Order: sequence, then structure tokens, then C-alpha cells
Amino acid sequence: MSAINCDTAVLTLYCKDVKGIVYHVSHFIFERGGNILTSNQHYEELDSLFFMRVAFDCSDIEITREAFQNDLVQLAERFGMTVNLTFSDEKKRMAIMVSGYNHCLYDLLLRRQYGELDCEVACIVSNHTEQAAVASSFEVPYFHVPVTKETKHEAEENMMALFREHRVDFVVLARYMQILTPVLLDAFPCRIINIHHGFLPAFKGAKPYHQAYEKGVKIIGATSHYATQDLDMGPIIEQDTIRVNHSHSVTDLLAMGRDIEKQVLARAVKAHIEDRIMVYKNRTFILD
Amino acid sequence: MSAINCDTAVLTLYCKDVKGIVYHVSHFIFERGGNILTSNQHYEELDSLFFMRVAFDCSDIEITREAFQNDLVQLAERFGMTVNLTFSDEKKRMAIMVSGYNHCLYDLLLRRQYGELDCEVACIVSNHTEQAAVASSFEVPYFHVPVTKETKHEAEENMMALFREHRVDFVVLARYMQILTPVLLDAFPCRIINIHHGFLPAFKGAKPYHQAYEKGVKIIGATSHYATQDLDMGPIIEQDTIRVNHSHSVTDLLAMGRDIEKQVLARAVKAHIEDRIMVYKNRTFILD
Amino acid sequence: MSAINCDTAVLTLYCKDVKGIVYHVSHFIFERGGNILTSNQHYEELDSLFFMRVAFDCSDIEITREAFQNDLVQLAERFGMTVNLTFSDEKKRMAIMVSGYNHCLYDLLLRRQYGELDCEVACIVSNHTEQAAVASSFEVPYFHVPVTKETKHEAEENMMALFREHRVDFVVLARYMQILTPVLLDAFPCRIINIHHGFLPAFKGAKPYHQAYEKGVKIIGATSHYATQDLDMGPIIEQDTIRVNHSHSVTDLLAMGRDIEKQVLARAVKAHIEDRIMVYKNRTFILD
Amino acid sequence: MSAINCDTAVLTLYCKDVKGIVYHVSHFIFERGGNILTSNQHYEELDSLFFMRVAFDCSDIEITREAFQNDLVQLAERFGMTVNLTFSDEKKRMAIMVSGYNHCLYDLLLRRQYGELDCEVACIVSNHTEQAAVASSFEVPYFHVPVTKETKHEAEENMMALFREHRVDFVVLARYMQILTPVLLDAFPCRIINIHHGFLPAFKGAKPYHQAYEKGVKIIGATSHYATQDLDMGPIIEQDTIRVNHSHSVTDLLAMGRDIEKQVLARAVKAHIEDRIMVYKNRTFILD
Repeated sequence: MSAINCDTAVLTLYCKDVKGIVYHVSHFIFERGGNILTSNQHYEELDSLFFMRVAFDCSDIEITREAFQNDLVQLAERFGMTVNLTFSDEKKRMAIMVSGYNHCLYDLLLRRQYGELDCEVACIVSNHTEQAAVASSFEVPYFHVPVTKETKHEAEENMMALFREHRVDFVVLARYMQILTPVLLDAFPCRIINIHHGFLPAFKGAKPYHQAYEKGVKIIGATSHYATQDLDMGPIIEQDTIRVNHSHSVTDLLAMGRDIEKQVLARAVKAHIEDRIMVYKNRTFILD
Repeated sequence: MSAINCDTAVLTLYCKDVKGIVYHVSHFIFERGGNILTSNQHYEELDSLFFMRVAFDCSDIEITREAFQNDLVQLAERFGMTVNLTFSDEKKRMAIMVSGYNHCLYDLLLRRQYGELDCEVACIVSNHTEQAAVASSFEVPYFHVPVTKETKHEAEENMMALFREHRVDFVVLARYMQILTPVLLDAFPCRIINIHHGFLPAFKGAKPYHQAYEKGVKIIGATSHYATQDLDMGPIIEQDTIRVNHSHSVTDLLAMGRDIEKQVLARAVKAHIEDRIMVYKNRTFILD
Repeated sequence: MSAINCDTAVLTLYCKDVKGIVYHVSHFIFERGGNILTSNQHYEELDSLFFMRVAFDCSDIEITREAFQNDLVQLAERFGMTVNLTFSDEKKRMAIMVSGYNHCLYDLLLRRQYGELDCEVACIVSNHTEQAAVASSFEVPYFHVPVTKETKHEAEENMMALFREHRVDFVVLARYMQILTPVLLDAFPCRIINIHHGFLPAFKGAKPYHQAYEKGVKIIGATSHYATQDLDMGPIIEQDTIRVNHSHSVTDLLAMGRDIEKQVLARAVKAHIEDRIMVYKNRTFILD
Repeated sequence: MSAINCDTAVLTLYCKDVKGIVYHVSHFIFERGGNILTSNQHYEELDSLFFMRVAFDCSDIEITREAFQNDLVQLAERFGMTVNLTFSDEKKRMAIMVSGYNHCLYDLLLRRQYGELDCEVACIVSNHTEQAAVASSFEVPYFHVPVTKETKHEAEENMMALFREHRVDFVVLARYMQILTPVLLDAFPCRIINIHHGFLPAFKGAKPYHQAYEKGVKIIGATSHYATQDLDMGPIIEQDTIRVNHSHSVTDLLAMGRDIEKQVLARAVKAHIEDRIMVYKNRTFILD
């Protein structure tokens, strides 16, 4: 094994567009013994920005991770890049927050079991008690943290303590039905992924399927986004829709919605885990 | 040929639900010699309403259309039904209104040529001059009616005169970029079909694709609805969506949007022509 | 409570088309005190056949189920109808057969827990041992019945004994990877629902995703059908597809396929439970 | 203006994977003054092949096109690359072949008019006479070349003469209903794009919608592929599907099929025009 002691790594970056960024980045990797496996770029015309994601083989890189990181900082400074580097053996640790509905919880746990989501499940936190059995059957630590209007601040402090203890990297709100406060939001910027059961920006807030029913729409949707203090207004990561018609009751819409909620959330979580998402001006850039 | 002198007819109705409506309607048709070909119902729980659409063979009906209609009025009164009856030889006459973009215009004319839309094209009216050649190549009467802020009222009066002259039954706004006034809106209640190039109720008004781009949505849509005085808020007939991502420019969104606009509008027009749509409390009930 | 002692019932039938079937059926229900809630028909032109499904309120029907059934037999004989009648309190009992992959098993159990599938889970039968924990966590009887080439006949006899004991109405092959013999196939005609992980009639038999990969298709699919002795050729109930491209490995196709397999199978099972499916000449007629 | 006298160019290539290809290609472009705008790669594991597509700004390149091309040949030889280079001012010239159905013809002409397809329409060739008016209304040269079993060889020779005269780069079979011979097929390898009105590899050959109807499938599709001597078996470029059910007649399937045929063909043609498609072992690799 080489000094870097890892098979592959993913580098993401964005910066003001100047000539030769692909060249300089690929040269940087090449001269250290890395081999690019996939590489994607996007040029954002409006702001003249260049986004790039490179996955590379690092098994032949002879220097240490620290040295590689230090060199990368210099490259980043030279071009004013915002960079992120993840080695494949550094699996992200996910906390799942859930309330009464468990379809997204089950979906995430099953996808991980099937190897679709390459992360660790650090813990499950719920303001309800009934998901303990699910957590137990998947052998994941489960914590019940009751939340009331009065105790919300304290409850989130308790959650923060749990997250620190379980070394949580990012949080998934898998139909967690409490609005978060800055205690959590500020601790995990662009690292809290929510699923909203409506096609944003339409049908914000509570009971989106009831809103959709009353409006008589012919399509309903679900939206996954990074949670911010602006309720249901954070950067959209993934969306999907499904056809409905007059014959569907609100109960039908809820059932059909569950199917797309699960998939939309899973795709968003997968993109996050695989370091595909960059955020700029409240929009996401997701590089395959 | 029988006295009714027509192959088939479509009856649509809705009323407060009472026991035996399907029986009474099917009995009404059966005892006059008609034969039900297709029949669809919907029971709307919230308002306890029953909606029904019946297509029936009338080639063996011995009474006249007038007599059949009169009998139907009595049935309707007995159950408090809102009814509509159309005979298959009474083809609806469509006026198409269009401005600078002609993709929906072409699409409607081609679908009619292929026999998908079983209606007459009474005339094409435009506030632009450049669609005259399209109209001419499909041999449809074309009228240029210029519209300015000052002359809008007068212009719509002129259009009304054209529509009367050409016996127009319903109007399709095929990317007609002027907001209508009550002159036209009140003359054709639930008979003016608009295509909005956005997924309503999100992105109302002007430049919906620009709004979608700025919001960073991952899905864009198009919505066909009956035009009402509430701009872009009339009863939704049909919608569709398409996946987009960060790499699509506004120009890309416009192009992708054209594809769904065409299809959404065509499906709405087809449903209208085939008497499948009933409107109640600003929602459409579309019975196959 | 009336003599029939049940809230609602579903009647399905098909027969050669003659004038007045909707009338006669609705009259039959009306004169016994029933009230039609939904009703759907289909006229099949090629064979001149009429298909009908009626759900009706029977809470005011004064005669017994036996008497109602006897009367229905007479109606059926008069018109040469193939009829089926199910009362809402007679929940179908489903057996689930599964091998090593459990995504469809989980999906069915979770949908039933959410109330989407209105049936009983009679038992789970598997030729593998590892699904016992899943069955246990959902509190469903589980039976391990090993199958080898030599013991297949005997194994299916054992399954038949289990199915009789647990009063099984229909069987779902939830990624059960053994080909069935006539022992089971003949015992449950049009009551064994299979999910094939390919878009039939393309990619029959083993490893359909590998076949799809090698052919370089841009869409993959899944197909649910009634199992017959003609492998993967029974009447198709439901299908769905998903876009893929050159960048997807066979592993990716397998993962994307799981998502549509689950949904396609669940929709087929739901349609079967709700008595929406009629089969004629190896095609299904599914009436909403 | 620089010596290369062009704004942008697209380079596509594939070769056995070795370390540093992205670096060497980006270095090649960078040292000649080019600036990469977008770049996509794909690593094909099975054959250990590397595919790459690079669009770059060449307005600052000081050498001539000829010199650039010569340098590129040397790079290609060094790595055993199959390369292709297209400058943005070299618009591809498309011939459209059509028979009785004109929906794809109209669609291609209208998309070009809207600027979606960045190519020239060199000519339209048909074995029918009735599309002359369409060609004329879009001001495109039209040639009627009758084809019978006996004259097919001669007819294709005549078409070849027309294609040479009009400097045709690639041919689109826009529902052209004659099977081609090697006269045309060998002259345009991977440059004849066909639309098959079925979901290949199911439903090859004639009347695919009739086949789909009889099989009772719940999804129909369309497939665009490069034409080869193996009928309907050439490399698949693009596919799409649409849901159908028992209530759809063959006529309905034909109408629904037209919608997806148009879109599938247009997307395939667009990918070809933009040099996104590489073919290896009868599979396409389409790099965004």
C-alpha cells in the first residue's frame, strides 16, 4: 500500500472560471501519481463560475494524505477555489431523525443494507417512541428525545450531544415533523437533508397533499432540500412527481406521495454521500 | 337510419348522490333503444356529489333528438342533475389564438390532420402577423387582430364578431401572450383553454422558466386550464413535468418546456372535445 | 344491520356484448336495495366482449348473501356472463414466497402495515432461511421449505399443505427464484402473481439486467404477471420502466430495477386484491 | 480572430485506459491556447476502455486547424485513441428520408426552425409524393425517388447521387418504411439514424404496435438506433416509453406512439449533431 493508504478519492471544487482549470487539476493529480476515473464539470454562465468533481484512483500516490491536502490548499489558493476532498475509506456517518411515519426510515435502512448507500448509520433520533423496534431490527442505536414547544431548544441541545458522541457527519430528516431551530441548523450547514412532501415551491408548509387536493392539481410531487432557517426554502437537491386525478382522495395522495418521498430522499442522500452536491446562491450543482 | 339520425352520443351529468342514479340513467337510455358503450362514474365524498359520463349507441333510437332532449330535461329535473348531451355528428368548432410562438399551433393542426382531435378548426386569430403562412398551409382562415393596451377592449369585440361569424364553440390559447378581458372570458365560460408554461400553482405570471431557473428546481412543468378572470388560477385540466438539472440554461428550459406544453395542451383540448370534463368548485372531473 | 351483513361488495363480469347490460346489472342491484358507488366498463371490439366492474353499497340489501348469489347466478346464465362477487369483509389471504432478495417482501409487508393493501398475510414461505427475521418482525408465520431439483415436487406438495392450512387465496412470488411446477400452478390459476425483473416480452428468463446491459438499452423495466406454465409468458398485469445509460453498471441496473420491481409488484397485488383484474385470451382487463 | 478562426470545437475519443489521459488531453488543449468548457469521461470496466468528450473554446488558439489536427493525430497514435474533432462552424448537413407518415418530418423541421437542432437540412427524399408540400413550406429541396422491389438498388444509387450533390453528412430515417440495402448502409456507417416504433429488442420488424396490443403489454415504446444490415438491431441511441392499458385500441397505440417517436428521434438526432455519441461493440456511449 502507498503512503496515502486508500483506493480512491473524490475532489470537488468551484471557482471563478479562468483558462486551464481542468488542465491544472488533472496535472495536480497526475504528477502525484493519481489516475482520474471520472470527471465532470459545469460552467455557470451567469456568474462565470466553474464547478468540477473528480474521482481518482490514489493507490499509487506516494505522499501522505496530509501532504496531499496541503498541496491542494495551495492549488485552491492560487485559483480562489472552494475545495473539498474525501477519501473512500472515510465513510460519512448519518443520523436519521424521524417522527410517526417510518416509510423513509425503512427505505434508508434497507438501501444501506443492499449497499446502495455507502455510509454508516450513526444513530436514529425520534420525538416518538414507536420506531425503537425498527431501529432494533436493523441494529442501529436509537434515542427518544421528546420535543414540546417549551423544550425544543433543550431537546436540540440533547440531540447535538448525541450527534457529537456518535460522530455524526450529516443529518437526514426522514419525515421528522418538527421545525428545527438554529441550534441544529447552524451546526450542520448544508448537511441537514429534509424531505418535503410537496412539489416546492408550491405547497409549502403543513398538509401539502391537502393543499394539492383542494387546488385540483393533476400532478403531485416531493422535494428534498438542505434545511435552512427559511422553512422549505433551502437549496433543492432532488424532486419527483406523479400523476393524480380527481378520483384520488387525500388518503390516496398520501399513499402515492410516500412512494416518491422515499425515492427522492434516497437519491438526495446518495448524492450527498458521494460528494456530488455543491451549493452556490441557494442552488445545487450535482455533478455525476 | 332512425329518427335520431346519429350513430353515438355522449351524456355527462352531475348531481347530489341518491340511490339508483346509474340504474335510472341506464334505464332511460335502454328504454329509448340506446346501448351504452362506455360509462364512467365518480363519487365525490366531500360534497356527496355523483358525476357520470355515458357514451351510447343511438342508431336504434326511434324518437327525435328534440324528444330525447325533452325527456332528458325531465330526468335532470327529477334528480337535480346538471346535464350535457352531444351527438357525434355535432363536431365542436375550435378557434385557435396565437402570438409569436407557433409550436402549439402546429401541434394542434397536425393532430387534427392525423385524426387525433375530432373537431373543426373554425379559425386562427393572432395579434402577430407571422402565423399567416402556417394557417394558409393548413387551409384554415386566419385573422390578424392587433392588440395594444388602449385597443384591447375593441380588439376583443372584433374577435367576438369573428367567433360569431365562424360559429366558434370553444377557444384555445395556444401560447397567446395577451391577458384576456371579460369580453371574451364571460362569453366562453369553461370554454377557453389556456396553456401556461409552468407548473401551477407555482410560477404564475410572466417568465415561469426564468423563475424556475432561479429557484433551482429539478422538475419543470406545464399546465392547461380553463381561463378565468383570476389569472392562471382557473380549473386545471392537465399538467405534466420533465426533469431538469443545473446544467440546463433558461434556453434549454424553454426548449424542454415546449415539448410538454404541446402535449399538455393537446390532451386538454382532446378531453374537452370528447366531453370528458366537468367543472365543480374550480376543480375538473375528467371521466375516461 | 341488514341480512347481507356487509357494507360493500364488488361485482366483476364479462360476456358477449348485447344491448342493455349496464341497465340490467344496475337494475339487478337497485331492485335489491344496493347503491352503485363506482362502475367501470370496457367494450372489447375484437371479440365483441363487454367487461364490467361495479362496487356497490349493500348495507340496505334485505336478502341474505346466499339469496343474492343465487339471483346473480340466474342473471349470469341469462347473459352468458362470467361473474365474480366479493364482499368487503371477506379479506383475501395472501401467501408470499421469497428467496434471497427481500426488497419486495419488505415492500409488501410495509404497504400492508400502512393500509395500502387491504388483505391478510397468511404466511411467508421461502427456500432460504434468512427471511425468518423479517417475518418475525412483522409477526407473520414463516416456513422454510428447502427446494432442490430432486425434491421440487415434494416441496410444492408441502407448500400446498401449508397453503391449505393457512387458507391461502392467492400467492405472490416476491422474487422467488424457483420455477414452479403444475402442482402449484394448477392449484391457483390466475392467482399466482410473479414479478419478473425485465421488460417482457424482451429479456425473458435468467439475468434480464445482464441481457439489457449487453444490448445497450436506454430503458429497463419490470413486469408483473400471472404465473402460467409458459415461463414469463402469463397475462401481464403491470409494467414500469426507468431510464438508464452507458454509465450504469449491471450493479446499478440491479439497484434501479429493485425500485421499479417493488412498485410494479405492489400495484399488481393491489389490483388483484381489489378485484379489478379480469383475464381473457392471455390479456388482462383492469377496471378502475 | 486567431488562425483557427472558430469559436469552439468538440473532441471525442476513446482508447484503452492508461494513467493520465485526462491530463494529457487537457494539457494538449491548454498548451495550444484552448480553454475547456465542458468535459465528460466514462470508464468502461468490462473492456478497460476510456471514453472522453471535450468541448473547448478555441478563439485564442494561434495555430491553424490543419496544424491542430496534425498534432492531434500524433497524440492519438501515442495512446491508440480513436478520435474525432469538429469545429463549431462546420454544421452537419442532414438528409431526411420519409414515406407516408410525416409527424417526425414536421417535428425535425420545426425543431430546427426553433434552433434546437444546430444543423443544415440538405434535402428531403421520399418514396411518396405527398410530402412535397411540407418540404416546400419549409423551403427545403425535396426529391421523390420511387422504390419497388425490383428498382430498390437503382433507387438507392440515385439517392446516393443526391446525397453527394447536396453534401449530406448523415441521414435520418423519419419513418421511412423501406428496408435499406448495403448501397446506403455501407456509405454511412453510424450515420444513418432510424426510428423504430417499438421498444427494442421486443417487437422487431413490422407492425410493432399490433404485436404490443396482442401481447397485452402495459407500456409501449420507441427506439432510435443507427441502421445496420441487422434489421432493427443496430446500436441503440435513445428510447422512451409510455403507459397504455386494455382500453387503448391499436389506433390509440399508434397515436400515443407518434408522440414518443418524435421525441426519441429528435433526441437521437440532437446527440448525433452535437458529437456526443461514440459506438463500441454495438453499444452507444453518449457523453453529455
